[in-house]
Amino acid sequence: MFKAITSEDISAFQGIVGDRCLVDEESLQTYSHDETEDISILPTVVLKPISPEEVSEIMKHCFAENICVTPSGARTGLSGGAIPVHGGVALSMEKFNRILNIDEKNHQVTTEPGVITEVLQNAVKEKGLFYPPDPASKGSCFIGGNVSENSGGPKAVKYGVTNEYVLNLEVVLPNGEIIWTGANVLKNATGYNLTQLITGSEGTLAIITKIVLKLIPHPTHNLLLLAPFFSAEKAAEAVGAIFREGITPSGLEFMERDALIWTQDFLGDKTIHVGDNHAAHLLIEVDGFDPEILMNDCAKIMEVLDQFETDEVLFAESQAQKDALWKLRRSVGEAVKSNSIYKEEDTVVPRFALPELLHHIKRIGSNYGFKSVCYGHAGDGNLHVNIIKGDLSDEKWNNELPVAIRELFQEVVRLGGTLSGEHGIGLVQKPYMDVAFSETSLNLMRSIKEVFDPKGILNPGKIF
Amino acid sequence: MFKAITSEDISAFQGIVGDRCLVDEESLQTYSHDETEDISILPTVVLKPISPEEVSEIMKHCFAENICVTPSGARTGLSGGAIPVHGGVALSMEKFNRILNIDEKNHQVTTEPGVITEVLQNAVKEKGLFYPPDPASKGSCFIGGNVSENSGGPKAVKYGVTNEYVLNLEVVLPNGEIIWTGANVLKNATGYNLTQLITGSEGTLAIITKIVLKLIPHPTHNLLLLAPFFSAEKAAEAVGAIFREGITPSGLEFMERDALIWTQDFLGDKTIHVGDNHAAHLLIEVDGFDPEILMNDCAKIMEVLDQFETDEVLFAESQAQKDALWKLRRSVGEAVKSNSIYKEEDTVVPRFALPELLHHIKRIGSNYGFKSVCYGHAGDGNLHVNIIKGDLSDEKWNNELPVAIRELFQEVVRLGGTLSGEHGIGLVQKPYMDVAFSETSLNLMRSIKEVFDPKGILNPGKIF
Repeated sequence: MFKAITSEDISAFQGIVGDRCLVDEESLQTYSHDETEDISILPTVVLKPISPEEVSEIMKHCFAENICVTPSGARTGLSGGAIPVHGGVALSMEKFNRILNIDEKNHQVTTEPGVITEVLQNAVKEKGLFYPPDPASKGSCFIGGNVSENSGGPKAVKYGVTNEYVLNLEVVLPNGEIIWTGANVLKNATGYNLTQLITGSEGTLAIITKIVLKLIPHPTHNLLLLAPFFSAEKAAEAVGAIFREGITPSGLEFMERDALIWTQDFLGDKTIHVGDNHAAHLLIEVDGFDPEILMNDCAKIMEVLDQFETDEVLFAESQAQKDALWKLRRSVGEAVKSNSIYKEEDTVVPRFALPELLHHIKRIGSNYGFKSVCYGHAGDGNLHVNIIKGDLSDEKWNNELPVAIRELFQEVVRLGGTLSGEHGIGLVQKPYMDVAFSETSLNLMRSIKEVFDPKGILNPGKIF
Repeated sequence: MFKAITSEDISAFQGIVGDRCLVDEESLQTYSHDETEDISILPTVVLKPISPEEVSEIMKHCFAENICVTPSGARTGLSGGAIPVHGGVALSMEKFNRILNIDEKNHQVTTEPGVITEVLQNAVKEKGLFYPPDPASKGSCFIGGNVSENSGGPKAVKYGVTNEYVLNLEVVLPNGEIIWTGANVLKNATGYNLTQLITGSEGTLAIITKIVLKLIPHPTHNLLLLAPFFSAEKAAEAVGAIFREGITPSGLEFMERDALIWTQDFLGDKTIHVGDNHAAHLLIEVDGFDPEILMNDCAKIMEVLDQFETDEVLFAESQAQKDALWKLRRSVGEAVKSNSIYKEEDTVVPRFALPELLHHIKRIGSNYGFKSVCYGHAGDGNLHVNIIKGDLSDEKWNNELPVAIRELFQEVVRLGGTLSGEHGIGLVQKPYMDVAFSETSLNLMRSIKEVFDPKGILNPGKIF
């Protein structure tokens, strides 16, 4: 399908990027996987360009020679988007690590894609500005990966996901042409929205080389509380009820009992008492500019929680305690991963359907004999479902799990939801796309892919 | 290029929509234009379907017969998007006028596209919910047109434009197939973003038949003030300065002297004193849930205004006074229109570039001898430039104006901005698309159009 890379191709790549063309075993291993379960496929070569022009030259060569290219960021993805499933070139964007311009006057930042999200957030925070989207991996993931996957994170419930902040992109097309997709403006009714089409397209349409993001004033205060529930479904119900009170928390996270216990074990920190009768916890944050209003919001939240039978609610009393609670929440994914072979689903439904979703997860799991641990961004209906292999047979795991997952996704779609809220489809969810989309819709997407990438050389094997 | 409609086609249409197939002179006249300047082109037939299935049948027939179709909403557009430039079918969506479901629990509304935006806003407000985008024509425009044009309005500066609220769309493709573009969820990383691609595509990719919108809690309080400036450029400078103070107004509107005076004349209401030395006004609104905070915001705004030399600031003291001020602002477009033949541009730049934009507008106008009246949503850098024909010769108007406009757009793009913030490209701005986009970008857009509409029958002659 694609041309195998020859020594002539390697020479051509060396001519473009010099010694940033790597073929040693360790480099190939490094770029063979992301954080997706246990999948690893070697590229033939790793290239580390430093400029849009170098990316352009690489793509021109690969386009002419029919060599496939998989863009690679910080490889923290959870759907296999950066895995070079057809070998070829792993195109690492790690050298694109400069914040180019923090435009304080217009509340915008122009950045290269290989900047770590938290580094970007801290840089703009120094100017009093806020870039809200904060995936759990914010300390290691790249902003370019966030744009490619349309990442979310806890703050999305109040501030929206990545695509709501992307104003303009410089991208290299598969044939090597460089374009800007839009303009550096807050509103734009000028032609088709190429910016939003490329955002979330998982590196399959173009390679992002510059990003212009909208920023907002950084909130000055926040309050954080942790509420233990005796019933996981009651906790899920409370989520919807909080919003019905007119409150928009800046974080509303759900953790099932095992998620919390496993994470405490993983971190070696058992500060939080988990009672025998605690089935789930909600971690709730409010933020803003006025401490008094936040106290009022918390009082209202407490009134709501009272209706859903919680145990004693913990108010974080110091920044250190807030940090510890968020560290706990952010480590759940890693902790679950360290515990067993697992399969993670990134289900998302309308917020009020959460209790029903949780019910179906457990029902289907029980039918098929799969144990699951659930946690996630309950405030926007985004529940991460970790299905645990434990001591199940390989046969059951390999043959029955896909059937159970398909059944789960059918329920998700019936509830008005879809396959992925923030992790993307990538490699591992593509068998289920027909649950969410008609063949007509899928064909539209495939044809759009062909418009950008007529030879299909860019990140092949993903989404479809 | 397209087949002329025959009596057989009319019979086929009657078979689909019965007596909602109109060929009388008055109907054809009505659907020959929108609110765009003085352009009028007759369709051959007006169809008024009532269901997605009827739209689908119409499109199947037109697709098979190569008949062109121009979707038509409330015809309040300002870029000629609803003008049937190639004749054929005017497809009126006015019978799609039902709000299907206000989902209070999930803060969503599902609506048909032919609902008047203000009707929708009032219906959800009764449930304490808020759909913010509010174009000046909100009392007459359709929500479907707002989605098609990605409309803005004064509230966009705080709450964002239409596309930030569109979660999911049911659309009929040019070949008659019906699809949903996404899911009813707040975050979605599942395949390409067809929802955002169709939003703002000006009825050229598909016909919208159902819309799912995100809603937010309705703010309970607002404050409004009107500040007269002795210099228009100082007023534009003050806009950026207000945001630099960390305040996000819910409206920040700019009106040049003539805009205000002409509108007072037009409305026959001279309540607002416009001093001889008043060059421009800013209308500034803050909203939220706590009156005290809003008072603090206003105090901060007043401090900023003090640095820019204003005359006495008017605080609206009653709802009636607020309504009157907003009516004044919302009527500027109509007032300017009634005053002279004019040409309206919908320029948008990064907010801090407004003073420079204003400078270039006046400089270019002065070079070519064109008078302009400017007003608009200064808070998000969106300035409506009305170029006035007055007693200029037709020759100058027809031959020199396009040159001057091109020069203006070149400055806009140089400032990081683009052609249209909220009115769309439609018919009247398409000659300037090459100023904003490279040929490569335009070809990508044209190819996306072909994916959806291989025969080019849907709203031909627009955007490209």
